[in-house]
Amino acid sequence: MDIYSYLSGYADGEGCFCVALSKSERHAFGWEIRPSFSVSQNYDRAEILHLYKQYFSCGSIRPDRSDKTLKYEVRSVRDLVERVIPHFEKYPLFSSKRKDFEKFALVCKKMSRREHLTDRGFREIIELVFTINTGKRKYSKEAVKI
Amino acid sequence: MDIYSYLSGYADGEGCFCVALSKSERHAFGWEIRPSFSVSQNYDRAEILHLYKQYFSCGSIRPDRSDKTLKYEVRSVRDLVERVIPHFEKYPLFSSKRKDFEKFALVCKKMSRREHLTDRGFREIIELVFTINTGKRKYSKEAVKI
Repeated sequence: MDIYSYLSGYADGEGCFCVALSKSERHAFGWEIRPSFSVSQNYDRAEILHLYKQYFSCGSIRPDRSDKTLKYEVRSVRDLVERVIPHFEKYPLFSSKRKDFEKFALVCKKMSRREHLTDRGFREIIELVFTINTGKRKYSKEAVKI
Repeated sequence: MDIYSYLSGYADGEGCFCVALSKSERHAFGWEIRPSFSVSQNYDRAEILHLYKQYFSCGSIRPDRSDKTLKYEVRSVRDLVERVIPHFEKYPLFSSKRKDFEKFALVCKKMSRREHLTDRGFREIIELVFTINTGKRKYSKEAVKI
């Protein structure tokens, strides 16, 4: 048994590579860009979440909004770039979720190089973000344009 | 990358080891016992279902009842006992779904030995079935008693 491949397989089904956008006066161009990797599970089957936390040595486990599940989540861009992304580059997803991961990874790497603080970098990131998990967004791309 | 561990990881999240019961005059004691292993996925991410079908060399892929997803399913007791169960014994689940799998495997093995056709075997299988995926059943255990 190879636990690394196992965790990738589990994430292919249950994992989420998301980039949330929210209005924020404290952030450059008035928008906070918040990437996260998360997996959720019912309370009675939470073992796998602890396995992720232990293996990645980062992130946290907490109740999901719905209160019916637990969520393991990594939000730190540094942890995403140094721990989470290298794992999924080495043990890649087989489904088309891989395309989302690749764009997610690009966003995180750009942010770790502080590119989101420049005009051009911000625009490039927003373009990428709107091609990930399309159809679930509160704001349209037009609303975020600078 | 180890595809075997990957498939177990995916199944830990998305897989179902189920035993359906339905009234049937054609079956011993008036009940059909129908075990199945299945995994579902959206149409645009169905690659993983084909991977299961290819690897297990059995089962079928078809639209799920909801029509919004595709389901890979193995229903043949022989295929379950000879192909699916040995895989999950070699690459076991980490979450508590493993307990469901172990009871499911026991039911399938008993059925492959034709034990469900005997009074005692039927009763033992029904006892097991009502400890798997509890809370989703159409019939109570009392209704199935012989």
